[in-house]
Amino acid sequence: MALIVQKFGGTSMGSIERIRLVAQRVLEEKEKGNQVVVVVSAMAGETDRLIELVKSITPEPNERDMDFVVSTGEQVSAGLLSITLNHLGHPAVALSGWQAGIKTDDAFTKARIISIDTERILKHLKEGKIVVITGFQGITEEGEITTLGRGGSDTSAVALAAALNADRCDIYTDVDGVYTADPRIVPEARKIPVLSYEEMLELASLGAKVLQIRSVEFAMKYKVPLRVRSTFQPDEGTLIKEEDETMERVVVRGIAHNKNEARITVVRVPDKPGIAAKLFDALAEANIPVDMIVQNVSVDGYTDISFTVDKNDAQKAEKITQKVAQEIGAREVIRDDKIAKVSIVGLGMRSHAGVAGKVFETLANYGINILMISTSEIKISCIIDEKFTELAVRVLHEAFGLDKEH
Amino acid sequence: MALIVQKFGGTSMGSIERIRLVAQRVLEEKEKGNQVVVVVSAMAGETDRLIELVKSITPEPNERDMDFVVSTGEQVSAGLLSITLNHLGHPAVALSGWQAGIKTDDAFTKARIISIDTERILKHLKEGKIVVITGFQGITEEGEITTLGRGGSDTSAVALAAALNADRCDIYTDVDGVYTADPRIVPEARKIPVLSYEEMLELASLGAKVLQIRSVEFAMKYKVPLRVRSTFQPDEGTLIKEEDETMERVVVRGIAHNKNEARITVVRVPDKPGIAAKLFDALAEANIPVDMIVQNVSVDGYTDISFTVDKNDAQKAEKITQKVAQEIGAREVIRDDKIAKVSIVGLGMRSHAGVAGKVFETLANYGINILMISTSEIKISCIIDEKFTELAVRVLHEAFGLDKEH
Repeated sequence: MALIVQKFGGTSMGSIERIRLVAQRVLEEKEKGNQVVVVVSAMAGETDRLIELVKSITPEPNERDMDFVVSTGEQVSAGLLSITLNHLGHPAVALSGWQAGIKTDDAFTKARIISIDTERILKHLKEGKIVVITGFQGITEEGEITTLGRGGSDTSAVALAAALNADRCDIYTDVDGVYTADPRIVPEARKIPVLSYEEMLELASLGAKVLQIRSVEFAMKYKVPLRVRSTFQPDEGTLIKEEDETMERVVVRGIAHNKNEARITVVRVPDKPGIAAKLFDALAEANIPVDMIVQNVSVDGYTDISFTVDKNDAQKAEKITQKVAQEIGAREVIRDDKIAKVSIVGLGMRSHAGVAGKVFETLANYGINILMISTSEIKISCIIDEKFTELAVRVLHEAFGLDKEH
Repeated sequence: MALIVQKFGGTSMGSIERIRLVAQRVLEEKEKGNQVVVVVSAMAGETDRLIELVKSITPEPNERDMDFVVSTGEQVSAGLLSITLNHLGHPAVALSGWQAGIKTDDAFTKARIISIDTERILKHLKEGKIVVITGFQGITEEGEITTLGRGGSDTSAVALAAALNADRCDIYTDVDGVYTADPRIVPEARKIPVLSYEEMLELASLGAKVLQIRSVEFAMKYKVPLRVRSTFQPDEGTLIKEEDETMERVVVRGIAHNKNEARITVVRVPDKPGIAAKLFDALAEANIPVDMIVQNVSVDGYTDISFTVDKNDAQKAEKITQKVAQEIGAREVIRDDKIAKVSIVGLGMRSHAGVAGKVFETLANYGINILMISTSEIKISCIIDEKFTELAVRVLHEAFGLDKEH
């Protein structure tokens, strides 16, 4: 008998009809003889409705009461699923975050799970019940209700799977798995049957919006096998698990792209120690995360520094950079919002030489200029002109044979 | 510094605009230097919406999960009020039933409050905060969420007032107090400034739908002064409190009427011991509450038994009565749905003779036949033909001078 944690998102819980379909997915797992814990999001649109209600009072509500209100969305959907399961003759019980023992810190609206006291869940599982738990929420040591921030239900599911030592955590969503590239751009993109946590993290943070990054980190830390699959189609989806020896055979697993960054360049910076620190300290102080940083070789005591930030932060970052540029005597600051990041990811890159060269050559063959490059052990990211994004993804997908069975 | 508990119903909490008005009522009390605990219902229509959602899955949902879902309505409204108060610069905190320490039995959907652990409420009051608490709900010893049944927020408020030893419990609603009769029937009806718990109980159970009966019983038991007042008009409303010596001076406090009963008569019952017991045991077993019972004097070994039940139970009660009538050899069973109960209530009736006579005489003067009579120390109820209801209320109201200042 295995213990399976299933997670269903807002679209899957969007109506009474869809909740009936979710109940079917739950019962399929239960009828295999498994113990099942289900984590649910609020019905699609409900969290937004509650936030709007709150914001119609004031755009800056106190966050403690905000969480108190917004957390009710999952309580309703969890209750409705449990009622459906009971109605179908299968004993089930709905638990809120606090009832399920999900303890968090007190960073309201973006709390982090600290620990899970599984006693009550285990008691209900022992009674043969399906346990339906509200995602996205927990309780502080002082008994205050918290929420985990957008997408937090994935994290709830993985954290519960870790705490319960579950055999698997299935993330049900409206796509049927992780693809070698965005199928809307590359029609030949193939579903990836298995990949490692590290690869998924690179793909997730690079723009494949299938899973919340934090939930993948959590799964990796506690070695919880994750499966991404569709609520609406019977399919095994994509399994994300610990690296094994077979995985390195695939050089490139997938290609991600991201149009949500902007590049800022500080031109002709005096190349003295502490200059870069001054700039990036100022950005950190303003709570602006920086993604890629490239500094050219110094020529006659001057250098150029380029970096990328999220487009939403670009204007603010530009202002701060201009101020610092003046202080350090740089010539000017240039901001470019029309860029894209295209990345190839694969464990096999560790042991295969020539991957970077093939990327650069492929892009060059199509006249695509590379503005910045950044690499890690298992990925290569290139910043290019935004207008080439789709073309770059397609030609790289073909060049690395991702359209073919491995 | 007094401690005041205020309760606001669903109509008062019906929109963001109305919640702003409620916040004003709260702050008026706070600004007098008082400590304030606020108990709220769900926004008007919200509880019905949630029940409908649940009932669209199955007409017979399991009640435990039903309460889990339905209790969210108050959590939203309490949060919204607390956000409004904080936004206006007054520290406030919203607490759910379980956070406020409201312990109940486990009779889901109609739970009863067993005790209240006030520690957390008192802590927040000490910090100078306004404490906003969800009405209508609590938690069992096992940590399950319960609801108290329709109108339960009144009971929550009174129970909290009792547990906190509050100086007063103000029930804010959409009427501005308790009247000598229904003002829609008697335009001359006057608002009653003060009355006793006993009088309110008789008026409440006789059809004046201002307060939930259980909440008045609770207030009486714990001697909590209750005030019924309007959210929408500045007015002292009606104070309901312990009897004092001045109250008996008013012979008749008010007139209530109820068109929701039906009368069943068993004709020519053999007058033997145990016959009435047989009938009313059968009704009790079917869970049908009986209101008035009248048995005539026995003539030649036979008697007639009449009783009234709620109209919703009338058909079921008739069937049961017919079965018993056959067994005991009665002649026939007659059911009459076209009746009304008109009652006059007043503490002064204890010490004033002639009240009953005046009632009978007044009704007789207008050709109104009395079908059944029932009396207690402080009330006289008459069952009459339904079509005379309004006339009876009006002429009794005039006969006892209720339209004049006392």
